[in-house]
Amino acid sequence: MTLSLTARIANFALMPARDIPDSARDVMRLSLLDWAAVGIAGQDEPVARITRDMALAEAGRPVATVIGSAMRLPPRAAALVNGATSHALDYDDTHFAHIGHPSVAVVPAALAMAEQTGATGAAFLDAALIGVETSIRVGAWLGRAHYQTGFHQTGTAGAFGATAAACRLLGLDATRTAHALGLVATRASGLKSQFGTMGKPFNAGIAASNGVEAALLAGAGFVSNPRGIETAQGFGPTHAGEAIWSALDGLGTRFLFETVQHKFHACCHGTHAALEALAALKAQGGNNEVTGVTITTHSRWLTVCNVLAPVTGLEAKFSYRLTAAMMLSGYDTGALETFSDALCADPALCALRDRVEVKTDDAMAETACLVRLDHADGTSKEQFHDLDTPMPLAARRDKIRAKARSLLGRDRESAVWSAVESGDLALFTTSLRP
Amino acid sequence: MTLSLTARIANFALMPARDIPDSARDVMRLSLLDWAAVGIAGQDEPVARITRDMALAEAGRPVATVIGSAMRLPPRAAALVNGATSHALDYDDTHFAHIGHPSVAVVPAALAMAEQTGATGAAFLDAALIGVETSIRVGAWLGRAHYQTGFHQTGTAGAFGATAAACRLLGLDATRTAHALGLVATRASGLKSQFGTMGKPFNAGIAASNGVEAALLAGAGFVSNPRGIETAQGFGPTHAGEAIWSALDGLGTRFLFETVQHKFHACCHGTHAALEALAALKAQGGNNEVTGVTITTHSRWLTVCNVLAPVTGLEAKFSYRLTAAMMLSGYDTGALETFSDALCADPALCALRDRVEVKTDDAMAETACLVRLDHADGTSKEQFHDLDTPMPLAARRDKIRAKARSLLGRDRESAVWSAVESGDLALFTTSLRP
Repeated sequence: MTLSLTARIANFALMPARDIPDSARDVMRLSLLDWAAVGIAGQDEPVARITRDMALAEAGRPVATVIGSAMRLPPRAAALVNGATSHALDYDDTHFAHIGHPSVAVVPAALAMAEQTGATGAAFLDAALIGVETSIRVGAWLGRAHYQTGFHQTGTAGAFGATAAACRLLGLDATRTAHALGLVATRASGLKSQFGTMGKPFNAGIAASNGVEAALLAGAGFVSNPRGIETAQGFGPTHAGEAIWSALDGLGTRFLFETVQHKFHACCHGTHAALEALAALKAQGGNNEVTGVTITTHSRWLTVCNVLAPVTGLEAKFSYRLTAAMMLSGYDTGALETFSDALCADPALCALRDRVEVKTDDAMAETACLVRLDHADGTSKEQFHDLDTPMPLAARRDKIRAKARSLLGRDRESAVWSAVESGDLALFTTSLRP
Repeated sequence: MTLSLTARIANFALMPARDIPDSARDVMRLSLLDWAAVGIAGQDEPVARITRDMALAEAGRPVATVIGSAMRLPPRAAALVNGATSHALDYDDTHFAHIGHPSVAVVPAALAMAEQTGATGAAFLDAALIGVETSIRVGAWLGRAHYQTGFHQTGTAGAFGATAAACRLLGLDATRTAHALGLVATRASGLKSQFGTMGKPFNAGIAASNGVEAALLAGAGFVSNPRGIETAQGFGPTHAGEAIWSALDGLGTRFLFETVQHKFHACCHGTHAALEALAALKAQGGNNEVTGVTITTHSRWLTVCNVLAPVTGLEAKFSYRLTAAMMLSGYDTGALETFSDALCADPALCALRDRVEVKTDDAMAETACLVRLDHADGTSKEQFHDLDTPMPLAARRDKIRAKARSLLGRDRESAVWSAVESGDLALFTTSLRP
């Protein structure tokens, strides 16, 4: 290891566009659509409104687009608002290599800096991609201990990704980029003890804003510790980082981001493998009455999403039994409004819910699930699903577009996706505004 | 312990003005003068200029005073700039209970929020005092382990102090203040690995800006974890906090801030006890040639400020031997420009420097020093000094005013001190501007 971590990330941030694989760009485009959809759909959530109102009251040079407002704001402020807004619904993409939400921390930073610098849509796309990959790599270097100690990788690792994206768009050299990464090391933050509060989505905004700020300051000559991530008393050593060097294997040639997961159901990610298996069984057709449903999953999820008889729409999102009954009964689990208190009291749904049993098998991957349906005629069917199974790009695109249509309506989704496909930055920012 | 730490701090932040001891207010006034002096004197330092230029380029609603500019900025931005600016020279006040610089993180937040809310000078003074006391108490609760792990208390504990000050000025109730403190728990940051770079003063700005932001958001209804400091995976548990509950003893009746230390020499705080002892010996007069100087200090300082033969002005600040020779030779150790490279090469000064010997005695307090002068006639004199020895208020005021005059000139110092004494906020902000 001749180069420091910070220097390696800085070099990666500047990698030539011609060396970036198109397969990674294809996935980034899907995440841009997904990010825009959950951001626009979340713009009236309280955390989005409160953060946006603070920033709009500050006002400032009208540079960068703000989801939910016709006004533009300085890039640090726009990144803060858009980060908090796009994570408000907790319906955005997830990468399990470090357990974080890459797009909500990075895309707002890349977008604000692209508008600040007048970048092309292609440069914006590449910067966003470099940024999310940086978050995943730094997050994997920090390791599970960092997450288990209580740090929210979306905010912490996300700040480094946001910085890398912003530095690339600002055209900083490797030395200046290392100073930006070193500076954000003293700024990066985010705690899991905020989960269940507005603090969780806010952590994404913090990361995005920190990244923009670090890039702007480093670009103006700010001197930090250019080994700020890995040095003694740097970010990693002070934040329970494991310094897993293999996390950097293939950096610059292989994009771990390509295996990012998108949410297709507006409920806890732990229920998604079961819902996909149920959807596949349902697609096989047949009118045979379901007399029993057995869901077999990894035991880690029992403390997360196994509310047996949910009463509120929020509780419903954390219930294997009710979401399974919803899927079998034809409810749209991708629509936010489906998860209501009234739904939890529906007699027919509750009757089906009570026929669902949840079992555990720790030999299964955390991303996998086995579902068995028993029918009135004595027959039964089984279906296995692992979220980690690669999905063809076209299938991913169709599912994300369907999700976005459900969130935004057909016309708005079409406008956003056309803008992403066109690679025209102005079209994209226009599609985000009210 | 019936109330959580966050709740206790929130209650303290709202304590009635009538219960605040005037002795604490007297010290806060001295720190306001000291803060203004080092801030104005530091306004052209690179970290101040770079941070200010970024914020001025963003612009925004002209609310709060910015040291070094005639423009006003939104309060979050002004707090960021003024925090970084006032810590740029590293010549501001220090509290040894938690080892942090309370004023540079708190006063900028209190000032920006006072301007935002149209507060009186008296309310500003009390809020600043509540804020610095909060920093010290939270910092002492976090403990030495927090500092030793690599966290810069000025930035971390300082964020809680800045938040308390800002919440008081915004008139938040205890519940809203707890949400602000809980929110800043996910935002507070600052690493010691930035020491020696612009990142160190920037940490003070981060703290100030974070405090303003948390108060504004909580005031607008933001919901965080209202036990965000002490809860599982809260700020303390994730940041090597020791949770030293005795740190809260006497909170609300006794102000630890009263023992804050002001720097009277523009060099490392570790040399100050020796310089004070030498000044006392020098004041005793006598023309007897000095043939030997013996400085006895705690061994912890040997790795900090015992450069034997400094070559640069910066190294001179970390040299017991040269600063002792400077004091005996009549140099002004309180003036920034005294510490030059040329000074280090002065033959007479170097000859005296070579007659200084540094010894250690770990039975001495870290804040104390014993100095012995040997004279050509065979006589010798000894003087002990402990920085922790209480100094009468008038003596502290005279020394701080002299320091401020040295930094600002007689007229400007007089304007600042008159403004502080008057309790008129507009006079004070005017005195800060170019």
